[in-house]
Amino acid sequence: MTYRFSDKLANLKPSAIREIFKNLTDPSVISFGGGNPAPESFPVAELSKLAADIFANQSTTALQYSITEGYMPLRQTIKARLHEKFNVGRDFDDTVIVSGGQQGIELACKAFCNEGDVVLCEDPSFIGALNAFRSNGAKPVGVPCDGEGILTDALEEKLKTTPNAKLLYIIPTFQNPMGITTPLSRRKRVYELCRQYGVIILEDNPYGELRFGGEDIPTIKSMDEDGIVIYCSSLSKILSAGMRIGFVTAPAEIISKMVVAKQSEDVHTNIFFQMLCHKYMTECDLDAHIASIRALYRHKCSLMLSCLEKELPSEITFTRPDGGLFIWCTLPRGLDSAAFAKGLTERKLAVVPGATFLADESGKSSSFRLNYSTPSDAQIEAGVKILGEYAKEYLSTH
Amino acid sequence: MTYRFSDKLANLKPSAIREIFKNLTDPSVISFGGGNPAPESFPVAELSKLAADIFANQSTTALQYSITEGYMPLRQTIKARLHEKFNVGRDFDDTVIVSGGQQGIELACKAFCNEGDVVLCEDPSFIGALNAFRSNGAKPVGVPCDGEGILTDALEEKLKTTPNAKLLYIIPTFQNPMGITTPLSRRKRVYELCRQYGVIILEDNPYGELRFGGEDIPTIKSMDEDGIVIYCSSLSKILSAGMRIGFVTAPAEIISKMVVAKQSEDVHTNIFFQMLCHKYMTECDLDAHIASIRALYRHKCSLMLSCLEKELPSEITFTRPDGGLFIWCTLPRGLDSAAFAKGLTERKLAVVPGATFLADESGKSSSFRLNYSTPSDAQIEAGVKILGEYAKEYLSTH
Repeated sequence: MTYRFSDKLANLKPSAIREIFKNLTDPSVISFGGGNPAPESFPVAELSKLAADIFANQSTTALQYSITEGYMPLRQTIKARLHEKFNVGRDFDDTVIVSGGQQGIELACKAFCNEGDVVLCEDPSFIGALNAFRSNGAKPVGVPCDGEGILTDALEEKLKTTPNAKLLYIIPTFQNPMGITTPLSRRKRVYELCRQYGVIILEDNPYGELRFGGEDIPTIKSMDEDGIVIYCSSLSKILSAGMRIGFVTAPAEIISKMVVAKQSEDVHTNIFFQMLCHKYMTECDLDAHIASIRALYRHKCSLMLSCLEKELPSEITFTRPDGGLFIWCTLPRGLDSAAFAKGLTERKLAVVPGATFLADESGKSSSFRLNYSTPSDAQIEAGVKILGEYAKEYLSTH
Repeated sequence: MTYRFSDKLANLKPSAIREIFKNLTDPSVISFGGGNPAPESFPVAELSKLAADIFANQSTTALQYSITEGYMPLRQTIKARLHEKFNVGRDFDDTVIVSGGQQGIELACKAFCNEGDVVLCEDPSFIGALNAFRSNGAKPVGVPCDGEGILTDALEEKLKTTPNAKLLYIIPTFQNPMGITTPLSRRKRVYELCRQYGVIILEDNPYGELRFGGEDIPTIKSMDEDGIVIYCSSLSKILSAGMRIGFVTAPAEIISKMVVAKQSEDVHTNIFFQMLCHKYMTECDLDAHIASIRALYRHKCSLMLSCLEKELPSEITFTRPDGGLFIWCTLPRGLDSAAFAKGLTERKLAVVPGATFLADESGKSSSFRLNYSTPSDAQIEAGVKILGEYAKEYLSTH
């Protein structure tokens, strides 16, 4: 039987990272390839106790169908937190629960894009978002970046010449894959340009709470007096990734479209874990927990950076993040990182080649991404040693 | 700000049922409008104990990112059960976990339909599926039914005249909203016709395990030697609806497209509850639990039927289901059930007017749907009394 698949899915490939991850069954391989939170960051004892409380006292609500918008007490708790901590949310905004930040991104695209429409994004960008756009028949178009994020002149040029651009997808804080942060002045310019050209900003902020250096910078959403920003985030990096609890704050009119689309995707998000998150946020000390994760990642990141400084040939450059999960390394002389990463796999070290993250799937990249949140200290030290030795050999022969 | 929403979502309305459900805050209203499983059907004590085990022994796996296809032990358990009990699954098939049966339906549409393509379906059909097709830009086209399901001559005519029909969506067992079951001979004819015209069958079987009368009839998927059937079901009606755990069995080539699309929607389904379902299915007696739900629904259904026989004017006809959750009532003389249902709301009884379930959103219906799984016995008796009194008045003045 020859299946007549939809145009949008006929050529869409699974995320290269998730495929790497899936095939990583050899326990002797060290992986800097994932983007998993550190398992020691899950507050297991508290969640276990709170879950028992829910089974004992609220089991019917926790196991029955619920409403698409999400568990109201959790929505209110998140809304209040976003408002107090990040000045996110105006009277015209609404906040709903989604099945991980990923679903927020996908629903935003579904709400705005017809097949063939364009989503502008940082180049490189988060592969999960790029594939969400593609799986809706929209086309991601990359805007070049420097060490401070998206280049606003290039953005303006794209906005001018792309009348069917409906969204700008942007991760201004601890960007995935680059680990860089866009300064305030540039955020303001991005907001102004999108307002001027009538393009909705889809601000993804999964790592915003994971700052371990430098000063907080206001989100783009915090500037949104015009109702042009959809803000997506989640509890994946601060409580548990596997539970799939995210949230979206956006103008109520946009939220209502996203909710209709969500109803058709999964009716609602697992209600037990929505209640569990609400209990955790109101009965435990989330801020103290986040402080402990920040300390953990500060340590892991600085360990990886000091190993990179020691082991890597000086021709290879790398970013120095103030938070998040990733460091971005770049080979000299435009060398292709795909071949480099393939060779590393044979030395039992997994990294993600930069081309994975490009809007243009046929593009090449001389960069690659390292993750420091998942590996242990010993793995960081051993892995960077492998990377350094291999890089020295590679650069001497290429 | 005027938002330029996508064509597919610009005019899509939320499910009328879920809206009824959401606004049903007045506790004095009796609802026959929902489709919730009976809360007493949730095995709370067992789930609570097994959840504590998972927190104690497998917390890292249960809270960390996982793979899109689902938790392998659960996939294997469900695959074996489908094979043994229902002869579902051939060597070319694969089984994956989705976030409720709803997601399986939506992903199947995404995998096959471009914007403008057609999904054929029983008329009336499940509103959640119709909206999933619409939210992907596909157009549901209804095929007329009688008391034994879809009319195969009418189906053939549609297949002949609709070259862009990609899927036939069908609920052959305890259909939603009609509560009817399609006999084997007609299932065989449906399979043959779809094979002949190259249209994929999307068989939805959420209620298949809830038979409390009559004999089991083989699923259409059990006949699938050609790899043309996608089979969707879930644990929502037999374990918990709020956890959002469903599954899909289909040819591996189709599954791989659906998995790529799922990766972009929610990465994976809540892993903790996947593990919990696996533990329940392997450590508890699911069949005994299902037997108790069947007994419960046999009682509730026969109570509602005997009340209907007693209270309703004989001009109103209704179906007599052998399982599932719904009874379908039809007013005489082509009277519009929308006006009738509105009047009932004022008497504090909620039912769902049939037009909600039509592929043609501007269509009218003289039927309405009743649910017997959610209300208590006392509510069934009191609600049908209200219905009967109102119906007598209504028919004497219309």
